[in-house]
Parts: sequence; structure tokens; C-alpha cells
Amino acid sequence: MTLTRADMAALDAADPLARHRDAFDLPDDIIYLDGNSLGAMPRAARTRLAHVLDAEWRTGLIRSWRGPTGWMALPRKVGDAIAGLIGAAPGEVIVADSTSVNLFKLLAAALAMNPGRTTILSEPDNFPTDLYIAEGLARLVGPAARLKIVPRAQLAGAIDSDTAVLTMTHVDYRTAEILDMAALTRAAQAKGALVLWDLSHSAGAVPVDLNGSGADLAVGCGYKFLNGGPGAPAYLFVARRHQDRFVQPLSGWLGHGAPFAFETGYRPASGIARALCGTPPVLSLAALDEGVQTVVAAGMPALRAKSMALTQRFIDLAAQECPELVLASPRDSTRRGSQVSFHHSQAERVMEALIATGVIGDFRTPDVLRFGLAPLYVRFADLWDAVARLKGALSRL
Amino acid sequence: MTLTRADMAALDAADPLARHRDAFDLPDDIIYLDGNSLGAMPRAARTRLAHVLDAEWRTGLIRSWRGPTGWMALPRKVGDAIAGLIGAAPGEVIVADSTSVNLFKLLAAALAMNPGRTTILSEPDNFPTDLYIAEGLARLVGPAARLKIVPRAQLAGAIDSDTAVLTMTHVDYRTAEILDMAALTRAAQAKGALVLWDLSHSAGAVPVDLNGSGADLAVGCGYKFLNGGPGAPAYLFVARRHQDRFVQPLSGWLGHGAPFAFETGYRPASGIARALCGTPPVLSLAALDEGVQTVVAAGMPALRAKSMALTQRFIDLAAQECPELVLASPRDSTRRGSQVSFHHSQAERVMEALIATGVIGDFRTPDVLRFGLAPLYVRFADLWDAVARLKGALSRL
Repeated sequence: MTLTRADMAALDAADPLARHRDAFDLPDDIIYLDGNSLGAMPRAARTRLAHVLDAEWRTGLIRSWRGPTGWMALPRKVGDAIAGLIGAAPGEVIVADSTSVNLFKLLAAALAMNPGRTTILSEPDNFPTDLYIAEGLARLVGPAARLKIVPRAQLAGAIDSDTAVLTMTHVDYRTAEILDMAALTRAAQAKGALVLWDLSHSAGAVPVDLNGSGADLAVGCGYKFLNGGPGAPAYLFVARRHQDRFVQPLSGWLGHGAPFAFETGYRPASGIARALCGTPPVLSLAALDEGVQTVVAAGMPALRAKSMALTQRFIDLAAQECPELVLASPRDSTRRGSQVSFHHSQAERVMEALIATGVIGDFRTPDVLRFGLAPLYVRFADLWDAVARLKGALSRL
Repeated sequence: MTLTRADMAALDAADPLARHRDAFDLPDDIIYLDGNSLGAMPRAARTRLAHVLDAEWRTGLIRSWRGPTGWMALPRKVGDAIAGLIGAAPGEVIVADSTSVNLFKLLAAALAMNPGRTTILSEPDNFPTDLYIAEGLARLVGPAARLKIVPRAQLAGAIDSDTAVLTMTHVDYRTAEILDMAALTRAAQAKGALVLWDLSHSAGAVPVDLNGSGADLAVGCGYKFLNGGPGAPAYLFVARRHQDRFVQPLSGWLGHGAPFAFETGYRPASGIARALCGTPPVLSLAALDEGVQTVVAAGMPALRAKSMALTQRFIDLAAQECPELVLASPRDSTRRGSQVSFHHSQAERVMEALIATGVIGDFRTPDVLRFGLAPLYVRFADLWDAVARLKGALSRL
């Protein structure tokens, strides 16, 4: 049966999340299918930043660091909100630094927590910065660590008695394939390895159950499906059972047990606060707080249901209108994150032409057209309009 | 001769920087003497953030990363502006991460640049996070590094053939003493050591001549005298002569030679860009851009002249009105940064009482009253009013 724009409009009319789009300020002339790179701006970001600037920085000045709603409390507050989205408990997640910096902290901590083991195990399709960070750590600590990269399908079999930590991105940034967190975590732990998950392409789009999966460590970014704004601070997770023996190497003053005692020697704070390093960028952190709230307000079950419906309809529409595209994402919705990717030999040119028509997706080397379908603000009718323009762009090649 | 409030008002009337106070939005009921902890808010921060939110994030969306004025260009653009304030050349400074994270990068890079040497040399009155970071790095790399702490007066004599890097804060955070950058740099380099300066309490308040001093490496924060806002991103300096062999361990994707090629292996970007790690927090970075411009607009020579006059008058007024205070800062203006500190046995209680009257300075353990006199917006008459209230607070003990 042929799908029509009216079918899509009917889905929008029945969409229980439709009103959540009003929480975002989106340009009228754009169909934005890149929320997996940079989430759209919540309207609340504008009012929150005005408050941070006028009431806090301008008026409160240095006093705004203190108190239960002060800036000092923000990394933990926003971390707790994110924890609720990724199957973690309060006090297991904190916001700090960038994803890359947090990966370094946790990989180094994992090596120290697994003495005698030297291998950081990963796969070539992990997000590149994850591999670069592991490579830099291995170079720094010399024979105490090495990075071993094996194809995804061979990961479980490659875990051995030298594997200190297995590190993977939960949702593939190119294809949207969801890795089996519980199975890979069990496989690693059965061999005595720790597991570190990168949730950058998961949180806010795909249900994550860190504690249900028995995960040890995780990181993630704030600027994709969490709508935290450009370069929003990242977060990290350390399972409660590991927190007392978890010591990370970026031992800056905010992770100290008493930052304002200005002691000469470092002693880590108790709990997740020891994962902090320097002073957090408050303006960006406040915007992240608002972004995370847009996700919390909708709830992950409803978001996941709409996300699966969106990606399935997009795949169906593309198959109907643009049969020359080769699907790069899993056909099984349960194994697919909140994006759809296609191979096309002229993908870069196609994406440039499509963006010129007001449909923003992105190109990923070597031949991938990537469309992020953020369930908070993408409408089913947008899918129709995007595919119609994609068809036009392909026909003009 | 007794100083009067009229004398202070006359100094304000003759102050060539007086009009620069208008660039800041300051509460009427506060005398703010804590710009060395958090600089006041430039009015331009409000308009800039509105632009970043509305024109860039909301409307430009992911496209705002690109182009000569795009977000990707900001770390280098703001770094070049800071370079002009600290005696560095364009391309020698970049904005990234926090001061603590940047210290880690540069200390690790210094060890690698000085193979066979294992000592990181510092002093107990260095800013604590600098020591904590060195301690964390030494713990991570094991026998390849150790942190040696000797009293400031013995630093030059303690440099030996095992010293890889000497690291110090240029202006003491407690006393405002300015260390002799040129002499200590020469002493270290004469023994084959590199030198890493923390400029957090210098930049924007005290002239710094990194290249004139032959300095190797430096870091600094953006939220004090650079007025970049709470937790503003930090910056780092690598002298041009070292850049080709400088490789830092936090090898994240933004420091890669081709971040968007998504290669599996890391190869550093050329020049200072290899010091980048993850994605920068753009909202905070944009505010820093505006803060730095307030300093650039005034110029360091005029700022230094006013800063010396302010600190001298504050010392004179305190001696006249509050003789029980013991000066903790150097009496010689040329050796004093842009703050004045006093010892008092009940310093914490005194500062609390003073803040209750609307004069904001800060307390530093164990017994220090600290007053930051930011020359961009502190008036001479403010000094009179602050000392009058300080006298009142002391009399009520």
C-alpha cells in the first residue's frame, strides 16, 4: 500500500508527544533531521540563560556558586536527572568536561581497578574519539596499557585474561545499530574485564539500562538527543559498587574532598564527585539542565515508541520514493537507534543538495547519508516532506 | 597626610579608564572586590548570548559550526586575542577545557619532550589544583614522573638534571606576589628543564611577556580578570618552537588533523590545534570572547597603571583606617598583582560581616582577607567605601 502525506499527517494528529514540539524553537523553513549531531534549542534555554546572566552572574556574582541551587550543585543535579534516563541511580552520574576527557578518566581508572591487566579492547567502528583517547592513554602509560581493536562481531571472543576494560559506543554513530549492552557486559565480566559504554548516541533517544545490564562505567555527551546546546558538557557514570576504589587521574580541585581547604595534597571526594576536575562552564551547563528536562518531561518509553515509529516510516517512505538508496541501518526497529542511514555512491553531493532545499541531515564518510529523527520535535509529515525533497535531489544528480 | 573620600573621587575624575566601567553591568548596592575569583558581567555578554542562542543555535543549528566566524573557529580566535595580552604570538594560544585539564596536557607533554627526566618541580604555595594535577599524573605514569615540592625561595636551587618541568603560578593566589618569570625561566632552562606558567591570576591584570621571558608552556583560566563568566573555558600556550614535537595525551577528536575524516587512528593537527580535545562549550566560550574583548579594549599598560594605583591606595587607606590588619601582599607595587590581602586572626568572621554590608571580597584559609581590585570596573571611591565598612566590621568584633 502506498504511503501518502495524509497518512503522515494522521500519525501526527494521533501523536501523544506532538505537544512537546512546542518546547522547542525551530525555524519554520527548515526540516531538521540532525538532532543526533546537535539537538534543537529548547525555548527554556533562552529564559534560563537570561536568569543565569542577570540574576546569577550579574547580581549574585561570586555568591552564586553557593547554596542548594547554586552553581556548585549543578553537576550533580543535572547528573541525577540524566541518571534517570539511562538506568542509573542518583549519585552515580555527574556532569563534567567533554566526552573525550571523561573517557580518559574512566579508561585510566579502569586500568587501575583491574591491576595486572593491560588491554583496552574496542572495535574499529567505535566513535573515533573513543579510539583516539584510548590510544593517547596507552601512549602515555607505556607498557601498562595497549589498545586492541577487533571487528565488532569478534569482540566477545577477544576478551581474555589480559582485558582490563572493554569499551564500546552503545549505538553506532554511522548505522544506528544498538549493541547488546547486557550480553556484552556479561561476556566481559565473565572474563574479569570491566565495561565502559559511550552513550552519546543513546541517551534521550534509546532506553538504556546501565544497572539492569550490570554496567561498570559509562560516558556520554549532552548536545545530541539531550538538547544541551553546542558543546554542552558531558557526563559520566560509575556504578555505586565501584565508587570507593575508583580514582581518576585528572585529579583537579573540584574532585577534591575539600576544594576550599586549599590543601597541598589531593584526597578524592567521596562518591561520584571525585570524577570532577576543574570548574564547570556554567552557562553551557545551565542550558544542558534545560535540555535534559525536555527529555525527562516526555519520558523514555513514549520517546522510544515514537522514535521506532519515525525511523520505520522513514525507511518505508525512502523505499517507496527513493529505491536507489541502500539502507545502512538495521531493519529490525528494536536494534535501531533514533537515526536512519543510507549508502549512496554520491552521498556527499546528495546531502549538499538536500540541505540547500532546507532539509538538514548529514554526510558521514565514506558514503553515508545520515538522518537523525529526534522524537521530541520531528513530525511524521516532516518525513514525507524530507523524502520528497530527497527524491528531487537524487533525480537532479 | 590623611586620605579622604574626596581624594579618591578626584582620582576617579582623572581616571582614563573610568568609562570602561560602563562596559559592565554591576549591581548598585554592591562594591565588588572579588573580580580575581569571578569577573563582573560585561554588558556585551547579554547581547552575545542572545545572538548565539537565536541566530546561531536556534536558526543556524548544526550549520553554525562552519565558516570563518563559526563555532569551530572560536577556540583559536579567542586564543589569539588572549595571546595579545600575555606576550604570545597568534597561533601560540588556544582556548580549551579547564585550567586543570590543560595543566595535565602540558605537564604530560613536557615529560615526553624531556625524555629521561622524571621530576615535575613545584612549590607548596602554588595553586592547589596545579599540585593535585601533577600528583595525579605522577600516580598514573608511575616511575616515569614524580612531583617534587620545595619552598618558593629554594626553587631555583632545586632544579637539577632530573627536572623535566618547573611549574608555578605567576601571581600567588593568596598574597598577589608576582614571581620573576624571566629569571625562573632562565634558571630552569639553564639546567635543561622546561617551564610551565599558570597565568590564572595574571592575565588581564598584570602584564605578562611569555615570549620575552622565553617561556615554554602556560595555562590560565578565563573567569577571573578576563571576565569570561562562571567556569569560562581556559586557555593554554605552547611556544611556537615546541609545537611540532608537542603531543599531548588527551588526544580527542578536535585535536586530530582531520576531525571529520573519522579515521580510526589519531594523528595530531598541526600547530596549537593539537592541544584541543573534545567539543568546546560554545555558550561559555562566546561569553569568554566578550570578556576578553573588555580587556583588549582597555589595553594592558593602562590597566596595569590603574591596578598599581588601586592596590597602593587600598593599602594606604587600610593602614590609615584599620591599622590592626597585617598586610600579606608585597609593599612594592611592581611585585604585586591586582589584589591586596591582609592577615587577621578572625579573617573568616570579618569577611562574613563585610559581605553583609555589601562589600564582596573573599576569605582564604587560614587567616587571609583577600580583595581583588579589577582595574576595569573598580573605582577609587569604592576603595574608600570598602575600607570604611571594613573598619566598621572590625570594630564590631
